[in-house]
Amino acid sequence: MSPAINRQIVLNSRPRGEPTLHDFRLEEQAIPEPGDGQVLSRTIYLSLDPYMRGRMNEGPSYVPPIALGGVMGGGTVSRVVASRHPSFKVGDLVSSFNGWQDYALSDGSDLNLIDSRLAQPSLALSLLGMTGFTAYHGLLNIGKPQAGETVVVASATGAVGSVVGQIAKLKGTRAVGIAGGAEKCRYAVDVLGFDVCIDHRAPDFAAQLAAATPDGIDVYFENVGGAVFEAVLPLLNINARVPVCGLIAHYNATELPAGPNLVPQLMSRVLTRRILIQGFIIADHFATGFAAFQRDMSPWVAEGKVQMREAFVDGLEQAPQALIDLLAGRHFGKVVVNVNPL
Amino acid sequence: MSPAINRQIVLNSRPRGEPTLHDFRLEEQAIPEPGDGQVLSRTIYLSLDPYMRGRMNEGPSYVPPIALGGVMGGGTVSRVVASRHPSFKVGDLVSSFNGWQDYALSDGSDLNLIDSRLAQPSLALSLLGMTGFTAYHGLLNIGKPQAGETVVVASATGAVGSVVGQIAKLKGTRAVGIAGGAEKCRYAVDVLGFDVCIDHRAPDFAAQLAAATPDGIDVYFENVGGAVFEAVLPLLNINARVPVCGLIAHYNATELPAGPNLVPQLMSRVLTRRILIQGFIIADHFATGFAAFQRDMSPWVAEGKVQMREAFVDGLEQAPQALIDLLAGRHFGKVVVNVNPL
Repeated sequence: MSPAINRQIVLNSRPRGEPTLHDFRLEEQAIPEPGDGQVLSRTIYLSLDPYMRGRMNEGPSYVPPIALGGVMGGGTVSRVVASRHPSFKVGDLVSSFNGWQDYALSDGSDLNLIDSRLAQPSLALSLLGMTGFTAYHGLLNIGKPQAGETVVVASATGAVGSVVGQIAKLKGTRAVGIAGGAEKCRYAVDVLGFDVCIDHRAPDFAAQLAAATPDGIDVYFENVGGAVFEAVLPLLNINARVPVCGLIAHYNATELPAGPNLVPQLMSRVLTRRILIQGFIIADHFATGFAAFQRDMSPWVAEGKVQMREAFVDGLEQAPQALIDLLAGRHFGKVVVNVNPL
Repeated sequence: MSPAINRQIVLNSRPRGEPTLHDFRLEEQAIPEPGDGQVLSRTIYLSLDPYMRGRMNEGPSYVPPIALGGVMGGGTVSRVVASRHPSFKVGDLVSSFNGWQDYALSDGSDLNLIDSRLAQPSLALSLLGMTGFTAYHGLLNIGKPQAGETVVVASATGAVGSVVGQIAKLKGTRAVGIAGGAEKCRYAVDVLGFDVCIDHRAPDFAAQLAAATPDGIDVYFENVGGAVFEAVLPLLNINARVPVCGLIAHYNATELPAGPNLVPQLMSRVLTRRILIQGFIIADHFATGFAAFQRDMSPWVAEGKVQMREAFVDGLEQAPQALIDLLAGRHFGKVVVNVNPL
């Protein structure tokens, strides 16, 4: 049964620190009608991602902020239910940016048909979509790992980190994961194929990380920040590369951390070890790199060489709590909201 | 008159913070005799450079530490006075690494003949040597400035910074210098051709820098660190590049600066602005890049397009005070010690 109204979750207030349920509001609107050249699609899967926290702030992040009262944005898999666009017909399954709502209109420019051979269409949100592309681009185009080098991946069981680790192994490197807790660490080694995984909650985390990287660290895929980065920094080798993909440890921060100021120490290390640190936003690279990514990743997925653990959450109304949990590290795998049946 | 003994300045003690004269000691040794395959040369010019401070420390820097009692190292221009090496003959003028002493032996591997057409042989230490190559490599191979972009150079009248600014102008960019005091700033604009130069001692330095970079900063050539870097950071554009060549503001530091810890802020900026920060040590790049540098730089120097202000200091015994002054920013231009007559 398709809903006869369009449920939307909008930004009710800007969070200070950790978001709460009061920062979101459920609204109901009429289902819009497509105009000429437009497509109406129904959301099936909604991707939840750490970057969404940044869009809830007022200030500029790397993506524009969501207006107060505006629908929360997000990548989706959806089904075309009405079309006045020549490239899309009713019944097509598309990757889309419907955001946190049942229905959305599009002019087609942000829609991509999903290969009907894909057994698990939600993977278009992760392995075969933005998540996988983020891991692939950051690791291979910035990190440039060579066989035999050591690659360290924070959030090793997170959506992006898990793909980074699997690609790192395909490239013949030693892959060291960092994750929160014994269960995630076991999964990283047993299922994802990391050589070793360190629990960042362990009191002797820094010493364990040093012991696990006897030849130092050549590539550190940064998507955490904070104390993990501080433990990694002294272990970086000469000519190490640090793709900076995310900093989830900072996203809920409301003030600067106490001193001392470690910027001079960081920059000295960058100089003496000839380290490269490069931030990237995957949206910049779709035009130039997505085709190459798809060419490499599709067979890896088809052959089972790269896999994705998905954490499904049932119902659009659960999305706010699921995002709060994601930011607190309480999920395990790629968080996908089941919004409507396939 | 050539000295009949070999005066050497050795490391007497490791400085804590700013070096003092007591950290150096003058010794006298017999002039060594070249063995088979060796060259003996007399030092004419000795280059003084900020990196020497790092070598006085015990810990690893990007160059190995000097042993207590060891001769201070350094690039030199020298004259061959005895040779048992087929490629060098008595009277040849060579660039060399004799260090802080009158005479040194070499197996020839670190010697390069100086073009006899060079009117000013001391330029082999600066424009046509390590200084110029440092500026060239950092700016062009890491900074990659495009015509119309804004390049900011700290220590704009320093040996490296002055070359960075002049090359930046040759490449059609807007070049903004940062220097200490009105005299240096005038020189940066009037002689070196910077579009504007900001005095970092001004109480409203950060505001002046922002006003001087209305289109933001695309390349920041870092050789200072500290407060200057903090003022630059908020002005860096999306996809800005920061070659990290030196951090003179930190070299004499004995403790970490007070908080707050600004690393999270720095890394957030790196992420959201997609900034590249890359440390480099020019010694890594001689084999792959020096020939290209010479090809470009030699005609620029011959045509007067790039020039170098040299600050000559007379006498080897003055070198310790001259290095102390250099680290305190009391010199103006490339510091060269006249050790022996040409």
